[in-house]
Amino acid sequence: MSDPIRLSLVDAEALATRALRASGASEPMARATARALVAAEADGQAGHGLSRVPPYALHLRCGKAKGDVVPRVEQVARAALRVDAGLGLAYPAIDAALERLAPLARETGVAVAALHRSHHFGQAGAHAERLASAGLIAIVFGNTPKAMAFHGGRRAMLGTNPLAFAAPAGRGGQPPLVVDLALSVAARGKIVAAKAAGSPIPADWAVDANGQPTTDPAAALNGTLAPIGGAKGAALALFVEVLAAALTGSHYGWEASSYFDDQGGPPDMGHLFLALDPMPLSGGAFDARMAVLLEAVAAEAGVRLPGSRRLAARARAARDGVAIPAALHAEIAGLAAAR
Amino acid sequence: MSDPIRLSLVDAEALATRALRASGASEPMARATARALVAAEADGQAGHGLSRVPPYALHLRCGKAKGDVVPRVEQVARAALRVDAGLGLAYPAIDAALERLAPLARETGVAVAALHRSHHFGQAGAHAERLASAGLIAIVFGNTPKAMAFHGGRRAMLGTNPLAFAAPAGRGGQPPLVVDLALSVAARGKIVAAKAAGSPIPADWAVDANGQPTTDPAAALNGTLAPIGGAKGAALALFVEVLAAALTGSHYGWEASSYFDDQGGPPDMGHLFLALDPMPLSGGAFDARMAVLLEAVAAEAGVRLPGSRRLAARARAARDGVAIPAALHAEIAGLAAAR
Repeated sequence: MSDPIRLSLVDAEALATRALRASGASEPMARATARALVAAEADGQAGHGLSRVPPYALHLRCGKAKGDVVPRVEQVARAALRVDAGLGLAYPAIDAALERLAPLARETGVAVAALHRSHHFGQAGAHAERLASAGLIAIVFGNTPKAMAFHGGRRAMLGTNPLAFAAPAGRGGQPPLVVDLALSVAARGKIVAAKAAGSPIPADWAVDANGQPTTDPAAALNGTLAPIGGAKGAALALFVEVLAAALTGSHYGWEASSYFDDQGGPPDMGHLFLALDPMPLSGGAFDARMAVLLEAVAAEAGVRLPGSRRLAARARAARDGVAIPAALHAEIAGLAAAR
Repeated sequence: MSDPIRLSLVDAEALATRALRASGASEPMARATARALVAAEADGQAGHGLSRVPPYALHLRCGKAKGDVVPRVEQVARAALRVDAGLGLAYPAIDAALERLAPLARETGVAVAALHRSHHFGQAGAHAERLASAGLIAIVFGNTPKAMAFHGGRRAMLGTNPLAFAAPAGRGGQPPLVVDLALSVAARGKIVAAKAAGSPIPADWAVDANGQPTTDPAAALNGTLAPIGGAKGAALALFVEVLAAALTGSHYGWEASSYFDDQGGPPDMGHLFLALDPMPLSGGAFDARMAVLLEAVAAEAGVRLPGSRRLAARARAARDGVAIPAALHAEIAGLAAAR
């Protein structure tokens, strides 16, 4: 195997933009998407990073994602936005939603944006973090194509259903506190990697097609991913389907087409973003209360805030750029050179 | 041990109301509290049911809960309410909050109520269910006195931090879909019961004071409860502290006094209630989308909706009343007879 290719963040963004443009994305869609993917790559979230350029390009070429659409934001109530991503890639719609949502939440105390006709939304925590950087508390829900069973069931129905929360960390100049997680014990990508490496997986990651725990990655990939906390995680994932799909009028995990192939129609995913203004709600106490929380965490031996690893990766990437597998680089460069 | 005492729901409520009145609660506080506790008992949630009458009475008598306060609801922004429970029991403040929150959410599309200077809030799902019965999507967060460690830590800091979600289940007359869970693998009460019975506990419920998994309930009670999903559940619980405590200006889990003794000041807990109007947000698709979800669940062998057991218990209790331990009945009757 060749060495990974190292790229500056600027070069990575330019390359991804060209590859998406050449695959049919409009200039604004390509730019918004490349920015989000490179930010995820820089944060150490390679699964939401540049590895997504080839499948996005595939969707743009086969019509599962439309490259020429412009998101439409409609205010459907005093504190509520409905955002139509137009069956394009998600990021232009997310940008449009957050740009309207933040000032609205400051006016009304809380506001919501429901996105529909959307696509893979990447790093949930990054969207929450943008709202928190604007001084707001953020709650983000998304569903994904099916990977987990209903509690008691055998078939993949529910997505792994990411949720994210973020809060401004007070006046000390600290970055926002971000919590970002999917409801499966492990990401499917880790099981795919174990299969490729010929390694067993921990027994709590997945069940086989008969619902039995397995350490065989091939059997796991024919079965379903295990939710965190058993019935509790499955119930949370079910409700994320309500919030991200039913409440936005979008596809459930079991209805959505794959992000990785050209089969079926557009995935047609939904996302829900909530933003709250902490100062009026807390009677002005919020910043001081957050300082107390950060001190309590810092005082505990062995404890780091959630997101510490992500911030460290981001700082390294700002200095050193990102390194991606040579084969992935060649694939993206090939897409960028295509007509 | 004597047989349990069976009471009709009306008699149980009257008895609990008298016990709380005699302990210093105002008539409205006693009634609101008794109604909520009997509803939890009927739902099979004995840990939030009549077993709470003696510790509530203790708090009313020692001043950790004030019996003579009236909750104050203030509209702090167009879609945001701040509710002061006055360091009384929680239920009158919750009633006052939900009464204002539901119509506000229908006006603005989303609305929030932040409760502070509050107390044990009982069955989180019951509050969410009330909003869903009014046609709204509900999201509820509360924190509790310390029981779990930060991820990587040893000391109890975080509460078990219940969260609940509810949604109207469409036009078919079905009850709302309710998801209600705490973020610990098991409730502390189950470990207390195992200790009393001299039984071991499963190794994933708790860790001892050195952070090591234990099957010894006594060692578990000196240690901390395990969060669901390890780091993921601990991160969720941390963020529930932000939402329930920092965002409302209330006590964190590690600052709150116990619900069960007379040590320290009032627990001073916070709760956050969010309500969303599904029809404008979904472009009118919500009811039909929920019907699809309910059909998908019903079609899967071995799968029941979350809350099925709770609804079955409620139906039995409506017919047969509730049965409580004879010792608990004698204790509540003793409180009711006191001057």
